[in-house]
Amino acid sequence: MSLLVVGSVALDSVETPFGAREDVLGGSATYFAAASSLLTRVSVVGVVGDDFPLSELEFLGRRGVDLEGLEKVRGRTFRWKGKYGFDLNAAETLDTQLNVFEHFQPKLGAQARKAERIFLGNIDPELQLRVLDQVERPQLVCADTMNFWISGKRATLLKLLPRVDVLMVNDSEVRQLAGESNVIKAARAAQQMGARNVVVKRGEYGALLVDGAQSFYAPAFPLADVVDPTGAGDSFAGGFLGLLDRLSSSDPSALRQATVMGATIASFTVEQFSIDRLRDLTLVEVRKRFAAFRHLTHFEELPDHVA
Amino acid sequence: MSLLVVGSVALDSVETPFGAREDVLGGSATYFAAASSLLTRVSVVGVVGDDFPLSELEFLGRRGVDLEGLEKVRGRTFRWKGKYGFDLNAAETLDTQLNVFEHFQPKLGAQARKAERIFLGNIDPELQLRVLDQVERPQLVCADTMNFWISGKRATLLKLLPRVDVLMVNDSEVRQLAGESNVIKAARAAQQMGARNVVVKRGEYGALLVDGAQSFYAPAFPLADVVDPTGAGDSFAGGFLGLLDRLSSSDPSALRQATVMGATIASFTVEQFSIDRLRDLTLVEVRKRFAAFRHLTHFEELPDHVA
Repeated sequence: MSLLVVGSVALDSVETPFGAREDVLGGSATYFAAASSLLTRVSVVGVVGDDFPLSELEFLGRRGVDLEGLEKVRGRTFRWKGKYGFDLNAAETLDTQLNVFEHFQPKLGAQARKAERIFLGNIDPELQLRVLDQVERPQLVCADTMNFWISGKRATLLKLLPRVDVLMVNDSEVRQLAGESNVIKAARAAQQMGARNVVVKRGEYGALLVDGAQSFYAPAFPLADVVDPTGAGDSFAGGFLGLLDRLSSSDPSALRQATVMGATIASFTVEQFSIDRLRDLTLVEVRKRFAAFRHLTHFEELPDHVA
Repeated sequence: MSLLVVGSVALDSVETPFGAREDVLGGSATYFAAASSLLTRVSVVGVVGDDFPLSELEFLGRRGVDLEGLEKVRGRTFRWKGKYGFDLNAAETLDTQLNVFEHFQPKLGAQARKAERIFLGNIDPELQLRVLDQVERPQLVCADTMNFWISGKRATLLKLLPRVDVLMVNDSEVRQLAGESNVIKAARAAQQMGARNVVVKRGEYGALLVDGAQSFYAPAFPLADVVDPTGAGDSFAGGFLGLLDRLSSSDPSALRQATVMGATIASFTVEQFSIDRLRDLTLVEVRKRFAAFRHLTHFEELPDHVA
């Protein structure tokens, strides 16, 4: 078992209909690590500025997260500012300051190079490729991307996809990548481009796993209180890869369980601002909600007389 | 087993990115009957004008649909004209001509009054109440409604809800009814208003059943080819009530199966224009896709060592 995440560690300022927070922990690697560390050991590669409150990450250290690869450099930390309306599915970005993240060059230490499973957070696909060039023999590579890279760095992204076991994107990203409005066709097109499997994240509507010729659908857990959707996608990825690493498997059954584990942990994330809900979340709570997911989607076969 | 639908029988003109059709069969009662007649005997109460091509309904008669309650009056049939873009979730209504439907007064014959299960299609809640006043002792009442009645006839709708076992609406309707953006809270609020159970239809994202304190989620079947989403909701209702009537049950397990049956039949409906796909659809095909739904959502429990 060994899991590596390469991505952003950020300070977010977020406003939702349920409140606002300033300069709280954010970033794909932060959410990913907070989620996956419930299940396995994870190493973080990222960069922060000298204004970053490192003590805020101590709880990750106590959960066994390896933060050796988190560079501290002079300058300000990556900052994102966003706002959500009552339709919590889409954030309006108010401000993005890349700061020290602008010149981020992921450097993997001896341990990180041996990682068996890797999550490439949403960064420049050139950097994602450079990470893959540094790892020795990963068993599973999962990558996120976004509209900015799909349009601006398409050729590089197309070089990356054949090296990706799980492309993990949202509806609009897979549609944009494939130039196809139907999500199933778009996911299959992404497979044609080289991604072995595709997970399409659909926010409050759940996630679709297109795995070879099969597909699997996990709804989002129906929550009465969603406070802040920020980080749902990255904690989904953390739950997904955390479980695959814990199970040391990526067979079809494990991929399905991982999709539900992603949805499970994401459903906790959105209950509070930032990573707050993940700080003291326990595996007992996670297992309980995973089981509730089974109940949520379970139905009996049709009796034979309906024919 | 006896099922009654009261609703519109219409001629639709529809344009989607995949083609266009003029004056084809439409209306809630038409889709409902075409779907539910695969599973049980259904009686239709509705009205058409003297321009209506009755021969188009002959296939329903061959499936045992009782069309005695379909009034033929002088004048033009209800017509709806709509258009869908690549986002097939929402239709743009281009024209609505109520015509003979404007003065529709549902009159139930001796047989229809004895119906055990009733679907009240999306019509004026005053008419929905008048239908309920005519039936003798229904075991299950399911009602649809829409934004127009939620805002314009709210008081009447609130009188209807305590007589409804299953309120079947879409996301935006339940949100509008409850004045609450969270769908789970909105469904619970609708229960507080008297509806025993709530089914929230979410188009390509599936359907949520809020049943007492429990909930159940059926995704939409992932289709690579969706041609025309018109009638998906009413054929969902037809599959849902058709199965409950066939099973003569509305226990929690049957409600779950019915939700999946609704999603199953709706997934066929949208594969072709109008009710075309439902004309020669067989129960063998339906059972096969129902089973595929089980595979689509099935996942194993977590092994004990993940703790």
